[in-house]
Amino acid sequence: MDFTISSLDRSLENTIQHKINLKTKPVGSLGKLEKIALQIGLIQHKTNPTLKQPTILVFAGDHGIAEKGEVNPYPQIVTQQMVYNFLSGGAAINSFCNRNKIHLKIIDAGVNHNFGNQSDLIDAKIGYGTKNYETEPAMSIDQCKTAIKKGANIVSETHNNGCNVIGFGEMGIGNSSAAALLMSHFTAIPITECVGAGTGAQGDAIKTKKRVLKTVFEKHHPNSPLEALATFGGFEIAMITGAILKAAELKMTILIDGFIVTAALLAANTINNNVIDYCIFAHSSEEQGHQKILNFLEKTPLVTLGMRLGEGTGAAVAYPILESAVAFLNNMASFEEAEVTTKD
Amino acid sequence: MDFTISSLDRSLENTIQHKINLKTKPVGSLGKLEKIALQIGLIQHKTNPTLKQPTILVFAGDHGIAEKGEVNPYPQIVTQQMVYNFLSGGAAINSFCNRNKIHLKIIDAGVNHNFGNQSDLIDAKIGYGTKNYETEPAMSIDQCKTAIKKGANIVSETHNNGCNVIGFGEMGIGNSSAAALLMSHFTAIPITECVGAGTGAQGDAIKTKKRVLKTVFEKHHPNSPLEALATFGGFEIAMITGAILKAAELKMTILIDGFIVTAALLAANTINNNVIDYCIFAHSSEEQGHQKILNFLEKTPLVTLGMRLGEGTGAAVAYPILESAVAFLNNMASFEEAEVTTKD
Repeated sequence: MDFTISSLDRSLENTIQHKINLKTKPVGSLGKLEKIALQIGLIQHKTNPTLKQPTILVFAGDHGIAEKGEVNPYPQIVTQQMVYNFLSGGAAINSFCNRNKIHLKIIDAGVNHNFGNQSDLIDAKIGYGTKNYETEPAMSIDQCKTAIKKGANIVSETHNNGCNVIGFGEMGIGNSSAAALLMSHFTAIPITECVGAGTGAQGDAIKTKKRVLKTVFEKHHPNSPLEALATFGGFEIAMITGAILKAAELKMTILIDGFIVTAALLAANTINNNVIDYCIFAHSSEEQGHQKILNFLEKTPLVTLGMRLGEGTGAAVAYPILESAVAFLNNMASFEEAEVTTKD
Repeated sequence: MDFTISSLDRSLENTIQHKINLKTKPVGSLGKLEKIALQIGLIQHKTNPTLKQPTILVFAGDHGIAEKGEVNPYPQIVTQQMVYNFLSGGAAINSFCNRNKIHLKIIDAGVNHNFGNQSDLIDAKIGYGTKNYETEPAMSIDQCKTAIKKGANIVSETHNNGCNVIGFGEMGIGNSSAAALLMSHFTAIPITECVGAGTGAQGDAIKTKKRVLKTVFEKHHPNSPLEALATFGGFEIAMITGAILKAAELKMTILIDGFIVTAALLAANTINNNVIDYCIFAHSSEEQGHQKILNFLEKTPLVTLGMRLGEGTGAAVAYPILESAVAFLNNMASFEEAEVTTKD
């Protein structure tokens, strides 16, 4: 939990904004791309920032509550099956990362399965799934601290290999329930307003999910962000929290996408609210709680494509927009260079 | 004006939709990407469509009305200066096309300047700018027909070289006025509600722009799409109209972006309303009329990034999303292939 995260150094803000304003285009006419270019410049403290070795880390973990199937339409075994699908390149996140030249790493944060020796899988397993928070906290405080540390270490290693822009994804049947509980805890929005369809609960199933999670929420009274993460979290969510904190400490550009990852950000941002300066919000999910978290954080996502898949797919699909933002900042001519007459 | 455009052949719709639904993800969870994948599959009449040699054609032309400076904050000379900027790679569209590996072609549709021998500029000049529609139609019917034909020919040539996905951009000081007039003509939305800031008119300047264009609109009474284009259009707009019609005839995927290009689409779609089946709407501009045209056409853009630059920049920035859509359709595993348990 020992992260040293600086608030964003804004000393180059005027210089970068001036550079943007002198480009051969009406002032402000590149909209959100101008804001992103500025933010990435500030994060890297450079007027000519570059994006290096973009990477998405997908953390997988299982959830005690999912074994009963009350809150999840898909059975728990799908978590491990999807990990194999990631490893063999067949999932949505594989297609998008391949297409957009994003490095993809898959992490076993705590899947209820022994993967044996899988060379492409990072083994950071905390346990074979969390406990069911209907009866007890999902994990111990020690497990939670270990998860945060492991998430941080994986980011450090990725950074050491040259990466300066990172996104996160997750896989864990039942984890939209954990995210809803964390969201309610950190935003004080009533739990029933945080619960959504997840991978596809409908009608009565959503009513049951709300009823079950309301009981869970009222049963526990965590007293710190760490306790909340341990009580309601998943191993993958705690690990993403640590990963976000470390990425901010290392002054990386962080792509935030999806309901579960944004819930992890809520925890990270409560631990250290400088974190959010390093975050770019990629996509607003169809999962209804996600838009509410974005409103709570007063953040607008780059795109809204009606996706609700998780895995970091929104980050992967939106990533080229960051590249476009950096490209215009570095490569467009100024009015003077291009000898174009200005408005004034 | 002789285009043979088939309505979209939907005979593979169930097959492609079934293929999408069997992918390892909750049904519908890729949102707009699923709709795009289906549309591109239908356009190409293939369950495994591919995007080849993506190209953006930027048409430049000058406008009679711009000489007085009543409707445009930038002087007319900026059109030719920006063409040189495109040719030397310094404009926003260059940065985005380079980044996203999109071929870029610049066309002189009718700039008020003699470019001499520029190897990278396609010479399709109709004239040295249009006439001022405050006093007479912007161009003759013959000029308009020639522009449409030239636009179509450039698309044919691009298609012959292997391109099957195309977008359009424009440069022409004053052309947001022409687009507003065309919009009002084709949608019956009052002209004052079609006029916006363009490259950056503010306050009194917008009032003047509205007053001037209201007078222009009321002066003329064109009786056909061709007459409307000739009266209110620009050479670049008429050329884009022809380009869109030909691209639809050739069953290319058409990326529509920006207020001016969408006004050209209104003309094309009035000439043959099968055109729109081939169009994907890339970006919703900040230019206020653009959202209204999209509403009129009952179309939702892929992204809204607050851009209002023209040049086809929205199409260039959004293009990778099309690639992601095609990538998931072609490369994701099905539940059966990946041995993942389904919900049922």
